[in-house]
This record gives sequence, C-alpha cells and structure tokens, in this order.
Amino acid sequence: MAVIESGREVHSGGDVAATAPNPVLVEVTRGPITESRHRGAIAVVDAAGSPVLAIGDVAAPVYPRSAVKALQALPLVESGAAAAFRLSDAELALACSSHDAEPMHVEAARRMLAKAGLDERALECGAQWPRPEAGWAAMARAGARPGPIHNNCSGKHAGMLAVGRHLGVATTGYSAAGHAVQRLVRTAVEEMTGEVLDHAPCGIDGCSIPTYAVPLAALAGAFARFAAPEREPAVRAAAIRRLTAACFAHPEMVAGSGRYCTEVLRVLTGLGFVKTGAEGVACAALPTLGLGVALKCDDGAGRASEAMMSAVLLALLGPVLDQARAGAVRAAGFPTLRNWRGQEVGTVRAAGPLAGGLRR
Amino acid sequence: MAVIESGREVHSGGDVAATAPNPVLVEVTRGPITESRHRGAIAVVDAAGSPVLAIGDVAAPVYPRSAVKALQALPLVESGAAAAFRLSDAELALACSSHDAEPMHVEAARRMLAKAGLDERALECGAQWPRPEAGWAAMARAGARPGPIHNNCSGKHAGMLAVGRHLGVATTGYSAAGHAVQRLVRTAVEEMTGEVLDHAPCGIDGCSIPTYAVPLAALAGAFARFAAPEREPAVRAAAIRRLTAACFAHPEMVAGSGRYCTEVLRVLTGLGFVKTGAEGVACAALPTLGLGVALKCDDGAGRASEAMMSAVLLALLGPVLDQARAGAVRAAGFPTLRNWRGQEVGTVRAAGPLAGGLRR
Repeated sequence: MAVIESGREVHSGGDVAATAPNPVLVEVTRGPITESRHRGAIAVVDAAGSPVLAIGDVAAPVYPRSAVKALQALPLVESGAAAAFRLSDAELALACSSHDAEPMHVEAARRMLAKAGLDERALECGAQWPRPEAGWAAMARAGARPGPIHNNCSGKHAGMLAVGRHLGVATTGYSAAGHAVQRLVRTAVEEMTGEVLDHAPCGIDGCSIPTYAVPLAALAGAFARFAAPEREPAVRAAAIRRLTAACFAHPEMVAGSGRYCTEVLRVLTGLGFVKTGAEGVACAALPTLGLGVALKCDDGAGRASEAMMSAVLLALLGPVLDQARAGAVRAAGFPTLRNWRGQEVGTVRAAGPLAGGLRR
Repeated sequence: MAVIESGREVHSGGDVAATAPNPVLVEVTRGPITESRHRGAIAVVDAAGSPVLAIGDVAAPVYPRSAVKALQALPLVESGAAAAFRLSDAELALACSSHDAEPMHVEAARRMLAKAGLDERALECGAQWPRPEAGWAAMARAGARPGPIHNNCSGKHAGMLAVGRHLGVATTGYSAAGHAVQRLVRTAVEEMTGEVLDHAPCGIDGCSIPTYAVPLAALAGAFARFAAPEREPAVRAAAIRRLTAACFAHPEMVAGSGRYCTEVLRVLTGLGFVKTGAEGVACAALPTLGLGVALKCDDGAGRASEAMMSAVLLALLGPVLDQARAGAVRAAGFPTLRNWRGQEVGTVRAAGPLAGGLRR
C-alpha cells in the first residue's frame, strides 16, 4: 500500500498513453462548478484528403461503430440490390440507421426483409429492448418480448441480407467477417477511408459484425469523400447521392423521435449528414463545404460526442445558418440539464479549443 | 478556421484544468485494443483523518451525489425518528439507497411514509421510471405511470419526511436548503467531512435536495469516520452502527437485483460498506481496516467508478478475502462485455496506478 505524507499526491500523471492527453472539450456543470469533464479528439478533412483541423490525437485507431453505417450501406446500392428489391428512400435511410425501434422503424425493417424474401428469423444482430418512450411500454403492455427486429441495427442488417440475396449467396452467417456480404462492406470502408484493413485492429460490434479501428483522420477523409461524390467513380457517386438524399428525406428513420441525429439531420438538410456511433464517436459529411468530420470522446460518452459535433457544426456551418437552425443544433448538443422534477440543475458546455467555436 | 500543415496537431493539450490531468485508471477494450478510457482520482483516509493514498487530484471539489446517503440518513436515527416510527432495518437500508423501484423497494417506501403518517404525495423527489427488468415492464403492462415513489431516492426522501414529522415541523418544502430537515442533513455531512459547507459549491441534486461539493479527501475522511464509530460521540456512533448494520443486513434494499452496491455489500458484509453516486462517484467505509475511500471518475461514468472501487477494495481487503468473494468483487467491477447476441466482445480493466493493485 502506498503511504504518503501529509496529503501530497503520489500519482498525478502516469498516463498509460504514450502521447499527451487529449484536451478537455466538454464540461458538464451543476450549480456553480464543473461536475464532470470529457476529453476527446476531432479531425476535419477536405475532399482532397488534406487535413483542415486536428484537435487531440487524430492518428490513434478508433472503432467507428455505427458512425460508418452509411459507408457500410454503399454495397446495398452499388450491388444493385436496392434497385432490384425496390427499396424506398425510407428503407435506405433505415439501412443507415441506429433506430429506436419505434413502430415505423420495426415496420420498415420487416418490409425490407420481406422484399428480399426473408423475415426477421434471418437477422443475426441479436435482440434489444427498444428505448424508453419509443416502443417498449407498448411492447411490455402487450406482454411481448423484443427480438432482433427491434435491434437498433436491424435496418443495417436487413440491408446486408438484401445484398446477400441479390448476390444469390446463402445468407446464413452473413454477419461473419469472411462472408461475401461482409467482404463487400469491408471493401467499401477500406476504399472510403484509404486504410488497409488487413492491418487494422478488428473487434466485434454490438450487433455482431466486424468493426475495424482506423484513425479519426481517415474517418474524416471517408466522410469528406461522402461530402464530395463528384470526385468518386460514377457508381460510387450515385450510391453516395442516393443514401445521402434518403437520409435527408427521412431523418426520423436514421435515429428516432427526439434523438440527436434525427434532430440535426432535419435541421441541416443538405448541409450536414451526421451519424453518431457507440462509445462517443460521431462523423459528418458537409456537402456544401466539401468537408468530412470525425470525432471521438475518449471515455465513450454520447453526451460528449453530441456536444462536440454540435460545436463543430456550428463553427463550420455557422455563417450559413439562421438563428433558428443554429439554435436547434446548439440545443441538440448542449441541452439544459434537468432533474426528475424538471428543475434546471446544470449545463453541458464546450471547453478548451471548442469553447467560443474552434479557437486555435 | 484553424488550418494545419500536413496533419500536424494544432491542439494536443490546452487542458482547462490548472493541475495535471488525472491518470487513466480504467480502460474498456474491444478486440485487441483499448476502445475508451476513463480518468479519475481516488482518496483513502484513515480514522485519524490521515491520508493513506491519493491518486490524482483529491483536493478538487466533487459533488458526492448519492454516495453520501448514509451520512444524510444520520439525522433519521439521531433525531429519534427511526425509533419513534419503528423503522425496520430494511427501511433504514432503503433510506440509504439508490433503489431500483422493484416491488420490495416501492412497498418499503410506502410503509415508511405510512409509519410517519404520510403517503407518496408528500414526496418532492420527482417521478422516475424504474430501471429495465426491475419493474417497469409490469408497470407498463398495467398501463400505470411512475410516480415519485418510484424515484431511486424515495427511501431517502421518506426518511427525511420522517425526520420532519418527528420534529413536528411542516413537511412541505422539506427538500429546500433552508428547511429544518435539510439543515440537519447538511450539518451531519459537514461534521463528518470536516468541511465548512457555507463555502462549498452547492448544486441541486437529481432528486431536488442540495448537494455540496467537497474534496474527495474530505469524503474519504467522512467514510473513515463511518468505519470507526468508536471514535465518535455516543449518539453518532450508535447511528452509524445502526445504519451500517441495516445496510449489511439488507443489501438488496440499498440498490437492487444485480446492481453493483447490492452485490458488493452482500459479498463484503462487515468488511466494505459501499455506495455509489451519480456522475462516477463511489465511497466506502471499511470497518475492519478503519479506512474510508472516496473516488470520482472525471467524466462521470458509472462503469468506471465501479471498476475503480472494485480495484481499491481488492487491493485493501485482498488479504482477507477468499477466492469466491474476491472473484465476486472483481466480476462486479470488471464485467466481461457482451454484445446483443451475448458474444464476448471486450473487457473493462484497471489501468495505470490501479493496474496490478494500487501500484505506486
């Protein structure tokens, strides 16, 4: 046991990481002081692949999780599956979504599967209770239990199954890394990020498919490509445009009522294609600026990645947003904190290089 | 907009805090790499008030939140209210709890209120849905909506109302800082921590009562006092012993089925009185060692505070724990991470000064 003298600190550093700590970017306050703080890193890259902004360590490998669903959905369009099965824009948006399992999401996922000649028994994402206030109360009332169709990734998985059916391959095991569908998905991510995924750390995502860790700078580069489809080969450009348009047309399908991505997509239609991922990741493609954004909160907090993304969006798009839209982006990322009685108890605020809008 | 050359970082530090960053103490892994990391601080103090261990900044003010419920419950016993209303051990444990609103919790809270001649309409903590798998499914099935009785703090509030009734004061407004009950609660916290709360940052807690920010070192000192009641005046010593015994006898009341505090209290009966608080706080009184522990995860994550506490408990109590109990404390704080299909996808592990058991 360590013994110290008179309160002098034994450990004040000893960071296991080799590089300097990422800066504090988000503070959560209660009353007069900061209660908790979140560190993180942010990369912004242009369509030529040149870095425009880097805060913190943008070279360390990051599992993008759900933030790259739109990249993973490229084969759904490029393979011809989306056209062959006549998937609607709403269904394509669901293929890019981390949805709430509200009735509209569950019905759309079922339709996608049916169009591909399948049903929910084909899904390999695992069962998940819908979020509170989204559908679980109704489900519980009916004495029902959730299934894989309610998993927030079921739209993505329905899309993957559609690809498999269109290719004419057996769909069992479609979630495994070696399956034809996953190889197409991986290739799309590899091409968009410019990273050789053979060398990338590979983990298993919450929904069972592989997730490859790549630098934030590479993720930002992928989203910059998404923001500038005119620079891509024709088939990819068409797929990017189709998915982007689908998500802008159906923001409610991409997440759900009151959720961050839905609110921001709705407010920034045409300007900011935003998608968050588990463990504090968020990415965005900004088509009018030809920029891609990728960020990660070190500790994985969603409240911080949403605040960080809102700060970045306001800094980059600020000049073209009217007060209402800027206010909505700000409120989505920096909500007033209320307690169980609805009393205002604190705030979420940008800090360090994010305070005052991406200061140097 | 900041422009950088060739990927060179613009910001790699710029920490808004004046002191060195707290060390990384917990890592969350997925596959071969760390996915997210948590920093924090830990203080261990002995019953004489001398610091035994300090990791990170233990002088910065921290809102203890629910971690100090047992301190806040001292007036319930010391005022004579607990005896006058014949509160059972289970009910006293509930007064110290952040419960799940399982049926046993809700029933106990209703009994406490009834014993004091009140019902749930007197509660000022606000309504809160019970946790999943605890009671909300049944509630939703019945078409019922949650009320203040389901708030995780309703036992604490029932205890406060009992104090008010015993004192013969009007109970309306009992949650406000100036009410006689809150002044007694504040005095108990002040005496145990040794901090003058007039000078302490004061916020509003989730359940509406005041919360005072004090250094982790002071919180650890309070819990060291809780661990060594023989050093306290007789009335306080008796109250500490009563509350400690009640919580050890009824761990299920202090949190709920499968929850961290319940599991650890059950396994460490007599050895470790543990209580977590929102925003990554956790405290413990170790009666057989005469030590108090207080810790905070910088970013507020409960998964990190639980891991940190388990690491500390294993380091301090390790020599007296058999494999089964040590294993249970370890599993509670360092669970294997599984995805929606139940596949193992990652781990939670101690890092830096916590790795290998509180290395210097």
